[in-house]
Amino acid sequence: MSYVKRAGVNIYYETYGKGFPIVFLHPFSTNGYIWYFQTFTFAQNHQCIVIDERGHGRSDKPQQGYAIKEMAADVVAVLDDLKINKAIFVGNSIGGMLVMQTNLDNPDRVAANVILSSGTNLAAGMPAEAKAAFQKDPTGTFEALVEGAFSAKSKRERPELLDLMKACFLVEDNFPKHTFFGSMADPGGVFNWNISDRLKDIRKSTLVLAGEEDQATPVAANKFLADNIPGAQLRVIKDIGHFYQIESPAAFNRELAQFVKQVAA
Amino acid sequence: MSYVKRAGVNIYYETYGKGFPIVFLHPFSTNGYIWYFQTFTFAQNHQCIVIDERGHGRSDKPQQGYAIKEMAADVVAVLDDLKINKAIFVGNSIGGMLVMQTNLDNPDRVAANVILSSGTNLAAGMPAEAKAAFQKDPTGTFEALVEGAFSAKSKRERPELLDLMKACFLVEDNFPKHTFFGSMADPGGVFNWNISDRLKDIRKSTLVLAGEEDQATPVAANKFLADNIPGAQLRVIKDIGHFYQIESPAAFNRELAQFVKQVAA
Repeated sequence: MSYVKRAGVNIYYETYGKGFPIVFLHPFSTNGYIWYFQTFTFAQNHQCIVIDERGHGRSDKPQQGYAIKEMAADVVAVLDDLKINKAIFVGNSIGGMLVMQTNLDNPDRVAANVILSSGTNLAAGMPAEAKAAFQKDPTGTFEALVEGAFSAKSKRERPELLDLMKACFLVEDNFPKHTFFGSMADPGGVFNWNISDRLKDIRKSTLVLAGEEDQATPVAANKFLADNIPGAQLRVIKDIGHFYQIESPAAFNRELAQFVKQVAA
Repeated sequence: MSYVKRAGVNIYYETYGKGFPIVFLHPFSTNGYIWYFQTFTFAQNHQCIVIDERGHGRSDKPQQGYAIKEMAADVVAVLDDLKINKAIFVGNSIGGMLVMQTNLDNPDRVAANVILSSGTNLAAGMPAEAKAAFQKDPTGTFEALVEGAFSAKSKRERPELLDLMKACFLVEDNFPKHTFFGSMADPGGVFNWNISDRLKDIRKSTLVLAGEEDQATPVAANKFLADNIPGAQLRVIKDIGHFYQIESPAAFNRELAQFVKQVAA
């Protein structure tokens, strides 16, 4: 485990294994642990790099500075620190946004993309009541959001996932409230970030994976990405919500292995 | 996200949350990530301390020095570093051995114990052929051991767990072969460690959890612990193998929460 410091912020990362590098980028309010079922499995044939994004987990948590562009620059700083030229990027939710932003700002560092349950211009799809609710009762509103982020099957068969996601949001030394509000308020942050007109400039091989029952970034939001990223492929996954990699890790891993193999071929 | 150095070895640990401390100690060949479904959930009401044992994960991996007594001293060094006087100890497999050893060497640091699928004097129960097989083909032999360490239900419903355990063993920068052989060879190491006559000196409230289908440390090995630790309670769990906390995280968490509540009351 190591830290790289960029613009005064210490970014935590881990790396395991050798081979063509894969970078894993986690969802909002979680941390790199969410790739537990991928990190070691793929490290048998790849160098797996798992990053805690700023404001999360083991990284520094500044009061502000949560523009997606800033957070994506942190990821490139990690690659620089590891002297990695190019990697396959795998990002879930805000992690997917960091993937897309890296494609725009540093396309030479990207070999291919897996965008898992993400979107752009999320605020536009959010009713004014929802924004007000988040300001008034972040915890209650987030818990409702998390309820809708898992499939019925996942909630029935893996109830620990719902507990885990709520806990990650609530444990302040994983995800302080100021990361939440700083990200909400940032004009280039997770909710306001909008690259709708620039998706066409993403030129690397891209797989978009959408959970059929995801209410956080619904299928339509992911279809918009796949429709606008040239050549992107969309797969909609039955019985899955927002977190395919932990809702059905073995199936996700098969899918990722197949994509990685195609890209590397 | 800190290291403490003891006897020249850097030990990695993480801590989340506030409240009565709980220390989590992982099985042989894995790392602290195995407590993913406990760390954040319990950090809502407790200080959770997750340690990578020497030779594993993010800690230093010396060529030798894998006596259980040494490894347990590392755990106490982490508590010292955090200025924690007393904690509830939760340990799985070799982690359970570290729990028991801490009870013998530093009883004042222990509030209560959860020993999950562990044992003592394992070498005695291991046929000579098994020892020879481990020397000749550690990977194949370990893979067979892991197959027998999960319940039929877990293998059917959570196939990623088997992949994960094999990968943790095989990824050298998580668990180098010298950790394996150094531990095998050590007269006080995981296989040779024998405190059968001293179990009676463990005086803190102890819950022993055994998976009914665990072939790595079978029910009998765990029953021996519970029979010899004064007042210890044994619970045998149906459809579970060696890794209750990841085979059925929600059920394990309910059980742990109940025990912690009783102990704290």
